[in-house]
Amino acid sequence: MAGNTFGTLFRVTTWGESHGPALGAVIDGCPPGIELTPEIIQEELDRRRPGQGGGASPRKEPDRVEILSGTFRPEGAACDLTTGTPISLVIFNKDAHSKSYDHLKDVFRPGHGDLTYLAKYGIRDHRGGGRASARETAARVAAGAVASQLLRAHGIEVTAYTVALGGVRAEARDMEAVTQNPLFCPDLEAARRMEERISEVRGQGDTLGGLVEIRATCPIGLGEPVFDKLDGELARALMSIGAVKGVEIGAGFRAAEMLGSENNDPLTPAGFVGNNAGGILAGISSGEPLIVRVAVKPIPSISREQQTVNLANEPVTIKVGGRHDISAIPRIVPVCEAMVRLVLADHLLRHLVLVAHRTAVQNHGATKNN
Amino acid sequence: MAGNTFGTLFRVTTWGESHGPALGAVIDGCPPGIELTPEIIQEELDRRRPGQGGGASPRKEPDRVEILSGTFRPEGAACDLTTGTPISLVIFNKDAHSKSYDHLKDVFRPGHGDLTYLAKYGIRDHRGGGRASARETAARVAAGAVASQLLRAHGIEVTAYTVALGGVRAEARDMEAVTQNPLFCPDLEAARRMEERISEVRGQGDTLGGLVEIRATCPIGLGEPVFDKLDGELARALMSIGAVKGVEIGAGFRAAEMLGSENNDPLTPAGFVGNNAGGILAGISSGEPLIVRVAVKPIPSISREQQTVNLANEPVTIKVGGRHDISAIPRIVPVCEAMVRLVLADHLLRHLVLVAHRTAVQNHGATKNN
Amino acid sequence: MAGNTFGTLFRVTTWGESHGPALGAVIDGCPPGIELTPEIIQEELDRRRPGQGGGASPRKEPDRVEILSGTFRPEGAACDLTTGTPISLVIFNKDAHSKSYDHLKDVFRPGHGDLTYLAKYGIRDHRGGGRASARETAARVAAGAVASQLLRAHGIEVTAYTVALGGVRAEARDMEAVTQNPLFCPDLEAARRMEERISEVRGQGDTLGGLVEIRATCPIGLGEPVFDKLDGELARALMSIGAVKGVEIGAGFRAAEMLGSENNDPLTPAGFVGNNAGGILAGISSGEPLIVRVAVKPIPSISREQQTVNLANEPVTIKVGGRHDISAIPRIVPVCEAMVRLVLADHLLRHLVLVAHRTAVQNHGATKNN
Amino acid sequence: MAGNTFGTLFRVTTWGESHGPALGAVIDGCPPGIELTPEIIQEELDRRRPGQGGGASPRKEPDRVEILSGTFRPEGAACDLTTGTPISLVIFNKDAHSKSYDHLKDVFRPGHGDLTYLAKYGIRDHRGGGRASARETAARVAAGAVASQLLRAHGIEVTAYTVALGGVRAEARDMEAVTQNPLFCPDLEAARRMEERISEVRGQGDTLGGLVEIRATCPIGLGEPVFDKLDGELARALMSIGAVKGVEIGAGFRAAEMLGSENNDPLTPAGFVGNNAGGILAGISSGEPLIVRVAVKPIPSISREQQTVNLANEPVTIKVGGRHDISAIPRIVPVCEAMVRLVLADHLLRHLVLVAHRTAVQNHGATKNN
Repeated sequence: MAGNTFGTLFRVTTWGESHGPALGAVIDGCPPGIELTPEIIQEELDRRRPGQGGGASPRKEPDRVEILSGTFRPEGAACDLTTGTPISLVIFNKDAHSKSYDHLKDVFRPGHGDLTYLAKYGIRDHRGGGRASARETAARVAAGAVASQLLRAHGIEVTAYTVALGGVRAEARDMEAVTQNPLFCPDLEAARRMEERISEVRGQGDTLGGLVEIRATCPIGLGEPVFDKLDGELARALMSIGAVKGVEIGAGFRAAEMLGSENNDPLTPAGFVGNNAGGILAGISSGEPLIVRVAVKPIPSISREQQTVNLANEPVTIKVGGRHDISAIPRIVPVCEAMVRLVLADHLLRHLVLVAHRTAVQNHGATKNN
Repeated sequence: MAGNTFGTLFRVTTWGESHGPALGAVIDGCPPGIELTPEIIQEELDRRRPGQGGGASPRKEPDRVEILSGTFRPEGAACDLTTGTPISLVIFNKDAHSKSYDHLKDVFRPGHGDLTYLAKYGIRDHRGGGRASARETAARVAAGAVASQLLRAHGIEVTAYTVALGGVRAEARDMEAVTQNPLFCPDLEAARRMEERISEVRGQGDTLGGLVEIRATCPIGLGEPVFDKLDGELARALMSIGAVKGVEIGAGFRAAEMLGSENNDPLTPAGFVGNNAGGILAGISSGEPLIVRVAVKPIPSISREQQTVNLANEPVTIKVGGRHDISAIPRIVPVCEAMVRLVLADHLLRHLVLVAHRTAVQNHGATKNN
Repeated sequence: MAGNTFGTLFRVTTWGESHGPALGAVIDGCPPGIELTPEIIQEELDRRRPGQGGGASPRKEPDRVEILSGTFRPEGAACDLTTGTPISLVIFNKDAHSKSYDHLKDVFRPGHGDLTYLAKYGIRDHRGGGRASARETAARVAAGAVASQLLRAHGIEVTAYTVALGGVRAEARDMEAVTQNPLFCPDLEAARRMEERISEVRGQGDTLGGLVEIRATCPIGLGEPVFDKLDGELARALMSIGAVKGVEIGAGFRAAEMLGSENNDPLTPAGFVGNNAGGILAGISSGEPLIVRVAVKPIPSISREQQTVNLANEPVTIKVGGRHDISAIPRIVPVCEAMVRLVLADHLLRHLVLVAHRTAVQNHGATKNN
Repeated sequence: MAGNTFGTLFRVTTWGESHGPALGAVIDGCPPGIELTPEIIQEELDRRRPGQGGGASPRKEPDRVEILSGTFRPEGAACDLTTGTPISLVIFNKDAHSKSYDHLKDVFRPGHGDLTYLAKYGIRDHRGGGRASARETAARVAAGAVASQLLRAHGIEVTAYTVALGGVRAEARDMEAVTQNPLFCPDLEAARRMEERISEVRGQGDTLGGLVEIRATCPIGLGEPVFDKLDGELARALMSIGAVKGVEIGAGFRAAEMLGSENNDPLTPAGFVGNNAGGILAGISSGEPLIVRVAVKPIPSISREQQTVNLANEPVTIKVGGRHDISAIPRIVPVCEAMVRLVLADHLLRHLVLVAHRTAVQNHGATKNN
């Protein structure tokens, strides 16, 4: 019960079904005084919009976000500012053809949550996956845009990009390239081959997985031992995205094959040499860039015939068809950014408690001594 | 602040430093009526005990657990039972030579939390890593033993085992072999070669990483969308273990290279064909076995000379030496089991709410209609 | 930070300002299969509507609630049912004259949160009190209506009523009378005198306080020792309503003057004799009706001249005027009901965990023995 | 399930039964660098010790607290300091005659949780009330002493005192008198008459209730709208003490009978005139002293014969007898202080997030502009 809230101090609650009236998010705990307008959020939303990227489906819903609470424009301010009260964001669903899902009403799509939702709840909104739809992540991206505004005010930047798709790997890490191709790939040559792979697989009615890497600048000290370690929180946040089946930090799975003398990042007066740790030591950020990679499974909705069962547990075959992407990449890239931002916004605030305590005690001590 | 509690309904808080007076755990939310004695917990603790397994250090602290609250033996009962009140477990530290850490007081060990703890808190218990010591996991294992008793009453079993160490991979998954070798490896031939690899690396003063796989039986329906998905919770729980740098579910990182048609597990009237999903669909357990793998980094405390800095940020070299293991495996294996048990115990209870609601409403309806 | 969520399992997050675009609530954790339509919620909302009750202000906003997620009408169902996913409720603000608050922009109204909000957040939406407005409670009432549907399915009923207003006390507890007068008073003769008192005070430009009592049927066993006792949770819930300055359970403050032999409720085979405990023993419901009373302060917005300061800390006088009620009663009555329902819904679910555990273990045991 | 933790950032988990091996508390979230020794905590514990105060029982357990984790004495420090890791406190039970409770094993004591615990959990530690014993509050007082150290570093002081006992009311509020009489009464003449009343009632085998008032200095800005208002949190915290049946803030129940013009505290350039608000406006501290009062019921364990039932629901009479106090006052006084301290410590940290955010953003802005 009750798993739709994320965070301790920067708290995000999302709601909404793929084919219900709307979906949205409530952000509780955003500090006051931060610039926030629908346009700022819209910019992030547009990056995950369907109809973009090589293998994207043609569903063209506009996904216009509205801010229903939590901002106010004081006299003389150049822009709406957050007030410290909950920020309610809503995106009304427009382009939703729920009729087109009628044939899926009585059948469990392989690789989807149809079976598990029905088993758990005894009732299921079958239209487009209901709450389990990837469309749910629009609310995360909207909330992530708010987190982004907070983080930016503290000098923290998060960037995600595609490092593999359908077996094609990006060799380069050219951050400028990321915005120059619809796959958010930091290697333009690899991006080209990824597009080819997508076309090839589309012809076969099949789908592709890949790898997304997230890099973030991060001040030293974020993360709370022992259960709320920064790496654990990132893992949970990213694994909560439907298509993600694996998460690794820094050297990640490669570390399992290294010697201690290879894996340790030596320290010098100028800082760390190497970043196998991925910017986290003992669950706390080290000041080095955070490096996280996630494994994205191929989209389970394929246009090929699949074996499954219906509600009566009789064998049937289905072709999901419809308006589906070939890969969760690139639309998952802004979602990964959003989730990392939610983690960092929350842990930034949690860490600020310590900073403020130290300052306040010093000030109080100074006052007492005068 | 405040990251030492795990779980929503089955809540575990751990405390204690490596070289303080004691360490322990408080379990709040364990249902009443479950058999629990120190001996039951001790059995689990003994499995993670130092001095076991191929590469283990000779520190031989007894790690005797005591139960300070939460159990009671009613008249006529064969055994102490939980009462529904918090269960306090304590393990007093006996064999702690804190003097032997004096030379580490002013220096940051590479790959450890020395630097980040000091940066975050401004104060650091340097003796054996303090709170960041792997010794902290003893409290997790003790708490996991309580979770195990609860899960067993519901027919849920969790087993972890070593599937790679120092580059040697287990091919077989012979569950009986797991208890027949000190490395908890399900492939006796691989276990032999792992031991060889350990001896080799010990001679070099170096350390090794590896892979641990966890398998659990699990009823359908556990996990809470969207942020508290079962896979996300498992990832967080396992990544919160110090040495873990990666987590994957089912096909995991391999899924990133598969086609949708390969990765989907078809459904038949007899159940799923294959388990690439690792027993979880849309964040909810599917009834198939849960399969999770973690990447364990090599232990950062090596006997070879390493480059680092001291508190004054001057370059120094250190040899950590001391009583250290060659690999976090096998001692991490029971810790992985414990963390998966904590997740499942919590999510079992969260799911039971739904089950009870359904039953109660049916009963209430039946009463009203009579 | 982040205080806009209530509950552990039945979780309600509210949002919205008095004069922003809308206000609403997200309910996360409502079990599936419960009948829920806008009409059901609207009925509760209409009870707290302005323009009702003796001293009510003439603001006539319609307060139409919409359900944006979390319900679905399965084939063959007579009504929309909850699905177990978050229920998003929204009420768009219609009749909001924010211009009429311009003269309050630079001044702190006595008895209001103007000063404390500005001190805390450094920014303040001054229009009608912003987030601190009593209008915020509309979202609570809407969420309480959802809780009410859940509780009803388990046979739990909550009723609040006015037992004092402006010094006039209700002697009778005639539950049928409650719905027969706009003040929700269980004593029609007292209600008449309360109305007189309201007229009298309205002429003086002043306002009145009073007492509300809440009575609930409740099964035995709800409430979680030691910090989440049912009485503590009720106290917090009710004290979180702006106008409430005191809460008491059962005999309450009278108990402070009683002897133990008077205050103890004796037990007989037929049940308790008396209910000084107010239906709660050691924080757990006893099966007797819950009895809670709250002290409601007079509304601070009075039409008489008051002394205060402006933003420059200069002395000024203000007359708040505007469309204000004479007393928070009767509109606070449905709010009290709503808050008690939120507490009971949450604690019902928390308690059901134990019930389900017991049943599941018995079933598992039975299966094993077959 | 799981109600033994208090707080969001300054988190306290208590555990232990009256007649188990020990009881204790784990504090997670205490900032580092705060002076903390067993002696500092012991001083608070000694104030609630049995065998003190007019009507106290002669049970003389020493209640020695030990600190098992979370403190460390860095080189050169004059005292142990907190490290930011969990602080584990334990008090071993010494003087516990569990045999003397055997006659209560099968019977429900009126006014106690015997019936409700058994109904909820199906098992009950009958010895001295088990977890429901007032002895549980020793752990709260110990934790409150840690909170006190934190608050003191920020200039916040909390004092509780007895303002009524057995119908005798304190007229004066002489804070120096509080430490000069065993009843913590701020009116020495009233204290004398309270002692007389105690003697009188002891002769009758009966018990007494009373009122405790708590006063705290508090900076402006603590408390989080809308559900975590400071008054709501205080109410919950205090109502979670077993004997408390009512809580009021500032004018409290008296406000229900006042006019708005009387109850509002006017503002002047020199500050508030009056404090009917009790130091809280719209759930946020106003900078005025916090004023809270609680109603304490008479202790239910009386030496007079009472009517009740046994496990078989047969009517029986019991005399509880044993080593019991005549009133929860004065031992409840330090418990009230402790609970208010826990609330303020938690809300201080929650508020510091905002303060730190503001400072950090200013600093970051300043850096960027250079």
